[in-house]
Amino acid sequence: KTYRICLLPGDGIGPEVVASAAEVLCALPLAFEFSQAEIGFGAFQKLGTPLPQETLDAIRAIDAALFGAVTTPPNIEGYFSPVVRMRQTLDLYTNLRPIKSIPHPSSREGIDILIVRENSEGLYIGSERMEENGERAVTERIITRRGSERILRKAFELARAGGRQKVHVVHKANVLRQTCGLFRAVALEVARDFPDIEMKEMLVDTCAMELVRAPQQFELIVTTNLFGDILSDEACMLVGGLGVAASGNIGADAAVFEPVHGSAPTLASTGQANPLAAILAAAMLLEHIGEAVQAQRVRAAAEACMAAGEVTADMGGTLSTEEATQAVIHNLKD
Amino acid sequence: KTYRICLLPGDGIGPEVVASAAEVLCALPLAFEFSQAEIGFGAFQKLGTPLPQETLDAIRAIDAALFGAVTTPPNIEGYFSPVVRMRQTLDLYTNLRPIKSIPHPSSREGIDILIVRENSEGLYIGSERMEENGERAVTERIITRRGSERILRKAFELARAGGRQKVHVVHKANVLRQTCGLFRAVALEVARDFPDIEMKEMLVDTCAMELVRAPQQFELIVTTNLFGDILSDEACMLVGGLGVAASGNIGADAAVFEPVHGSAPTLASTGQANPLAAILAAAMLLEHIGEAVQAQRVRAAAEACMAAGEVTADMGGTLSTEEATQAVIHNLKD
Ligand SMILES: CC(C)[C@H](C(=O)O)[C@@H](O)C(=O)O
Ligand SMILES: CC(C)[C@H](C(=O)O)[C@@H](O)C(=O)O
Repeated sequence: KTYRICLLPGDGIGPEVVASAAEVLCALPLAFEFSQAEIGFGAFQKLGTPLPQETLDAIRAIDAALFGAVTTPPNIEGYFSPVVRMRQTLDLYTNLRPIKSIPHPSSREGIDILIVRENSEGLYIGSERMEENGERAVTERIITRRGSERILRKAFELARAGGRQKVHVVHKANVLRQTCGLFRAVALEVARDFPDIEMKEMLVDTCAMELVRAPQQFELIVTTNLFGDILSDEACMLVGGLGVAASGNIGADAAVFEPVHGSAPTLASTGQANPLAAILAAAMLLEHIGEAVQAQRVRAAAEACMAAGEVTADMGGTLSTEEATQAVIHNLKD
Repeated sequence: KTYRICLLPGDGIGPEVVASAAEVLCALPLAFEFSQAEIGFGAFQKLGTPLPQETLDAIRAIDAALFGAVTTPPNIEGYFSPVVRMRQTLDLYTNLRPIKSIPHPSSREGIDILIVRENSEGLYIGSERMEENGERAVTERIITRRGSERILRKAFELARAGGRQKVHVVHKANVLRQTCGLFRAVALEVARDFPDIEMKEMLVDTCAMELVRAPQQFELIVTTNLFGDILSDEACMLVGGLGVAASGNIGADAAVFEPVHGSAPTLASTGQANPLAAILAAAMLLEHIGEAVQAQRVRAAAEACMAAGEVTADMGGTLSTEEATQAVIHNLKD
């Protein structure tokens, strides 16, 4: 089988790290057909939109996409976040953030959490208004039974498939009684279909605390959109931070994987960007398309590089982007 | 001057730790007149409401209140969170959470952050509804210019008064364009009145990350209600956690100080509860009523106990609640 992958390089260091990840993919015994599409501020300057229709069509047409990063310009008329728009338009309702210890001094040990973030509703739905002549602003947080059910079911399925025995459903139902109450009620229903998996509830503020105190207690966390945004960024810092954090945006018809870091404009073209997060995003992509063995090989190779100090300056090494990429390829084991 | 203090012991270990804090206050060369009022599940069982009108009147009538903790019963008709209701009814719009390193192995070093949380609006306003026969729930996040202005002004004033030179305004205006956009716009306006203080902006997800990575960079964080709830709990875990975390709820006419921990029902009546958080809440109360020197004495005494291991079991010591309280009193220096 030939896998069709769409590359979305974007701005800043995006193109460089996406190229690194593609190099690693090409070193595997798999057949890929790559396409490329425009996204971000560069696309906006060239085409008048940060997310052209052709890009959306390209992502829908293929097996999975690998996205780099975009630069957010300060307050420009007509510009919008292509990341959020892409998630909404393609209904990429699952955001996956694996939080796993790495062999590096910046990481705490014994952590292996999958954070499953609802990626399509909640506070991100864009239902906002100004009232009373600009004196008062309102954002609607919208939680639906359907949206909750599909993400919770997905979370329990991922737990089962990944051998995780405990799912933490994180909410704030003591204050957000209707919206978090609905999410919580659906969780209790869905959990009944997974008697092999233990469901635990935790308030979002407690979870933010417990992630610092004893992150090893978590196996899988499932939560609503903005809570997931905050908790996953907090958690990634426990295991090496942005240099290695990757995420996936997955829907029924499309999937986009990305390093969590931004476009780092000042680092662009210096050849010093850390390619590991993009490479680990490519590993997530491999897992998604059903190549779990190859995914594991890539992840193991990246970890071998970290353990050996074969990394870029941000992680205490001396390698360039290209050298770090070659080091990963060199460390691929059968 | 005789200070009038209302004690709100509440449930579980609340009465025990509030008693400890009152003992410490009584050991100071100040005159206090204590009153006491009911709050929580005990009050609900006795009086049919967790927050009787007399309690609200009592808090309004005095200089400051010291609150213990309340037990939240599972889904009981007519019960509501007295904490949130008290904040709303008394318009205690400022929530203060000092995050300061302690001399104890559970604390990271060099941290001294004041978190200023907006405590009256945002997602806590209680504007919620169910739609489509329970298929869809909506919570309104409401941010007003007035609410933003008063908390931001308070934050900058607290920075100036406390010798803090940098204020981080934390929001998510890239997604919550109207509500966080308003908060951010007001921040930029208010900051102009404080040219001696540097204002920095940070997205809430970035802040959650940076608190783990490099908390020493922050001097004061001001943010909206739920973001403050999450970030302050996360941050308290960097400096010893719930055993020592205290907070203040401050309005124009009333102020309530409290340990952040809960009522810990299983620990109640064992005599083993850690009184330090309540004692540090009393120190915040002293600061609020203008007794900064006595506040500092209490805090220093508590820190001396931590440094000497004169603490309860949860912090690795062997003292009972009463012994730990006496140790603080014994360590009060002139
Ligand atoms: C860029 C931003 C809109 C986005 C989000 O808030 O979801 C980012 O923080 C993320 O987590 O992917
Ligand atoms: C008890 C709860 C409603 C409260 C809140 O969410 O504000 C608590 O977490 C706090 O921070 O004081």
